[in-house]
Amino acid sequence: MSNSAAIERLKNQFQDRCVTTDAMREQYSQNEAHHTPVRPDAILFPESTDEVRQIIEVCRDTQCPVTAYGAGTSLEGHIVPVRGGISLDMGRMKGILAVNQEDMDAVVQPGVTRRQLNEDLRATGLFFPVDPGADASIGGMAATRASGTNAVRYGTMRECVLACEAVLADGRVIRAGSRSRKSAAGYDLCKLLVGSEGTLGIMTELTVKLFGQPEAVSSAVCGFQTLEGAVQAVIETIQMGMPVARIEFLDELQLRAVNAYSKMDIPERPTLFLEFHGSENSVAEQAERFGEIASEHGGLGFDWATREEDRNRLWRARHDAYYGVKAMWPGKRGYITDSCVPISKLAEAIRETKAEIEASGLIAPMVGHVGDGNFHLAIMIDPDDPDEMKAAERLSHSIAERSLRLGGTVTGEHGVGLGKIKYMEAEHGAAYGVMAEIKRVFDPQNILNPGKLISLN
Amino acid sequence: MSNSAAIERLKNQFQDRCVTTDAMREQYSQNEAHHTPVRPDAILFPESTDEVRQIIEVCRDTQCPVTAYGAGTSLEGHIVPVRGGISLDMGRMKGILAVNQEDMDAVVQPGVTRRQLNEDLRATGLFFPVDPGADASIGGMAATRASGTNAVRYGTMRECVLACEAVLADGRVIRAGSRSRKSAAGYDLCKLLVGSEGTLGIMTELTVKLFGQPEAVSSAVCGFQTLEGAVQAVIETIQMGMPVARIEFLDELQLRAVNAYSKMDIPERPTLFLEFHGSENSVAEQAERFGEIASEHGGLGFDWATREEDRNRLWRARHDAYYGVKAMWPGKRGYITDSCVPISKLAEAIRETKAEIEASGLIAPMVGHVGDGNFHLAIMIDPDDPDEMKAAERLSHSIAERSLRLGGTVTGEHGVGLGKIKYMEAEHGAAYGVMAEIKRVFDPQNILNPGKLISLN
Repeated sequence: MSNSAAIERLKNQFQDRCVTTDAMREQYSQNEAHHTPVRPDAILFPESTDEVRQIIEVCRDTQCPVTAYGAGTSLEGHIVPVRGGISLDMGRMKGILAVNQEDMDAVVQPGVTRRQLNEDLRATGLFFPVDPGADASIGGMAATRASGTNAVRYGTMRECVLACEAVLADGRVIRAGSRSRKSAAGYDLCKLLVGSEGTLGIMTELTVKLFGQPEAVSSAVCGFQTLEGAVQAVIETIQMGMPVARIEFLDELQLRAVNAYSKMDIPERPTLFLEFHGSENSVAEQAERFGEIASEHGGLGFDWATREEDRNRLWRARHDAYYGVKAMWPGKRGYITDSCVPISKLAEAIRETKAEIEASGLIAPMVGHVGDGNFHLAIMIDPDDPDEMKAAERLSHSIAERSLRLGGTVTGEHGVGLGKIKYMEAEHGAAYGVMAEIKRVFDPQNILNPGKLISLN
Repeated sequence: MSNSAAIERLKNQFQDRCVTTDAMREQYSQNEAHHTPVRPDAILFPESTDEVRQIIEVCRDTQCPVTAYGAGTSLEGHIVPVRGGISLDMGRMKGILAVNQEDMDAVVQPGVTRRQLNEDLRATGLFFPVDPGADASIGGMAATRASGTNAVRYGTMRECVLACEAVLADGRVIRAGSRSRKSAAGYDLCKLLVGSEGTLGIMTELTVKLFGQPEAVSSAVCGFQTLEGAVQAVIETIQMGMPVARIEFLDELQLRAVNAYSKMDIPERPTLFLEFHGSENSVAEQAERFGEIASEHGGLGFDWATREEDRNRLWRARHDAYYGVKAMWPGKRGYITDSCVPISKLAEAIRETKAEIEASGLIAPMVGHVGDGNFHLAIMIDPDDPDEMKAAERLSHSIAERSLRLGGTVTGEHGVGLGKIKYMEAEHGAAYGVMAEIKRVFDPQNILNPGKLISLN
């Protein structure tokens, strides 16, 4: 079906905020990962909920696909408009509409990025904890149910989005959830929209939980003799209920890339990056206890960072891990995997994965939000080398199957998008059919991000 | 429509586990609250998921209503089978199927009660935190999205149910969620079922989060000169991010009933019951900090309970608050209200409510899970006195409207059931229409707990 009718109407309504140049269409065809680019027919830049509603109504009337676009940092091809149509760039809806300090929540438009929000909050003593690494938009993070390094203590977007406003495929605008901290008032539509990847509605406003900036923070780097030792230390730390804020694993190869890119000199061993939040006493106590656990598992002592600039440098390096990898193997692209298992299975999952990397001959540094049982590989491939691509697919497939066999999920935090759709039946069984029924109710014409999360045919 | 065809088939299949005696039908017609009793045609006692499936298939084929029944402790008429049919008593599905100590989760059948689970967990060092007071079933608690005294620290059933199995209205058995701590794999059907009050499916298995039993626990009772002072102390405690485990408000009248029923002698003032969980140091630190906050707001000093038996006695008394009220005003029934507002609005909500109680002349002791912005009245009425009933309805209505005006919800934790259905449109607006569409997809014949949460006509 041609989308020209939609584009013509939208051009009239939105003028230079409806862009159809080749250069821009090319730019919006891509994503950060390895998925095949597809160009949208036009890119729209709405500035309000009402404009989003107007665009959706045109798309509804003309059956034109709409793919929402946040900061462009998603990793499963969510933003690739596989059936053309409209790329809906939410980046101009950047308003922080309210910061309710007493209630520790903020109401934001979807294009606000997590760094923008935290900058804005700096003077309040509050912060927004969800931190997927990239400076993603809050709307995109909600749509993909993002998490990241702080989730072990503060939860993911599932826990941190209290309410949202969304435009549905028929143009209705709904509000789901409320600012009260709990509610038993009916079906949890807010949690249904969080993680729905723009396939059920376009989120136009979000109310997110904030937390008090901890009185004391201390970060540490701790190398281990073995990978197993590092993972066991994590498992015991979690099991004793210690409220560690971050507990991140990096393997030797990943550390080598981090050292080179971020000009650090951390010994290249299986290593944990940690952060403790709390009162001065509680942070000291947590650190001491972790130290005891680590030393039982071959921990080689801490390198501490208590000054804010040292901590920032450390976490900047962790966040830049992927850029480090890209810089170390120029010309290669990252094929990113995303496995999450019950923590009792984490050592097994990582050990078997490492053996498979070894056998495959691929370059695949590992990082992990191991406190949640979640880890990633960046399999570095030459996109023009079909053998390498196939080997990466095989490895990724094996990791996904193992996640399911061990009682986990094929995606801890990157979402389904294009890349994980083929596992949904295996992961959810009959429940996947129910998801398709829900999709049909919300979007009977399949115009909202078609081809992602659910295959409707 | 007659349900005799269904009953006949079920009698044949289930024999003496399909009960149709008058005495039993009478027993299952009632609930703990003030709703008008309605008898089911039969009570069924399934012992497995497959038996639930068989029953649902009969009900599907005969369009016979099915109302799930847990421990019978819900407060909004959820278990009153308003259109007759089957009361499905899940009480024989009491198996604790797995306790995964390393992963800190448990897999249970829906009839397991929270006390049963915690008894079973005693030796493991773990506990299940959600505690609505009554010894409710885990299935019922999930269905109504229950919470209670511990929610301020450990979350509600929304946060604590990781996965579930459910039988849908057409007999399909689905599994939603997984044992991994996070997932971005598609629509969150588990969170959609939690809080759906048996209207979308019958939960037949639940995976719930467990937590480490705290190393140290200390409880305290702290009276205040004024209600405002007590509420302000709560607000500041929450805002400073203190991980208090319980922070419960009782007014003078409620304390009088507690003292009489539980043979305690707590001074009859606006009072907070508190509990701190953590390491020895952290508990001491929390208590000290709370003490400073309290003394700024007219706190009259603590009465400490650190010995386990004293703590148990205190919380037993708190849990028996409603029984205390019933004992103090024999012959009356409690009309229970349930308001939850953003914590910045809590003082206003409580102050206005108190003034209305005063003006109404009703007896209405107040308790509150004030750390979440949630409070309840037990309005004591003579069910045979229509004037008193009307006055209670007026007061309850005013509380519900105020909750919405202040950005809150008409039900923090008791659910919608019969009592709150009339506010759903006001609370959710267009989103309530979407809930109805979801209900129609899951249950097109409206056989699952019809008349609750959603009005389909």
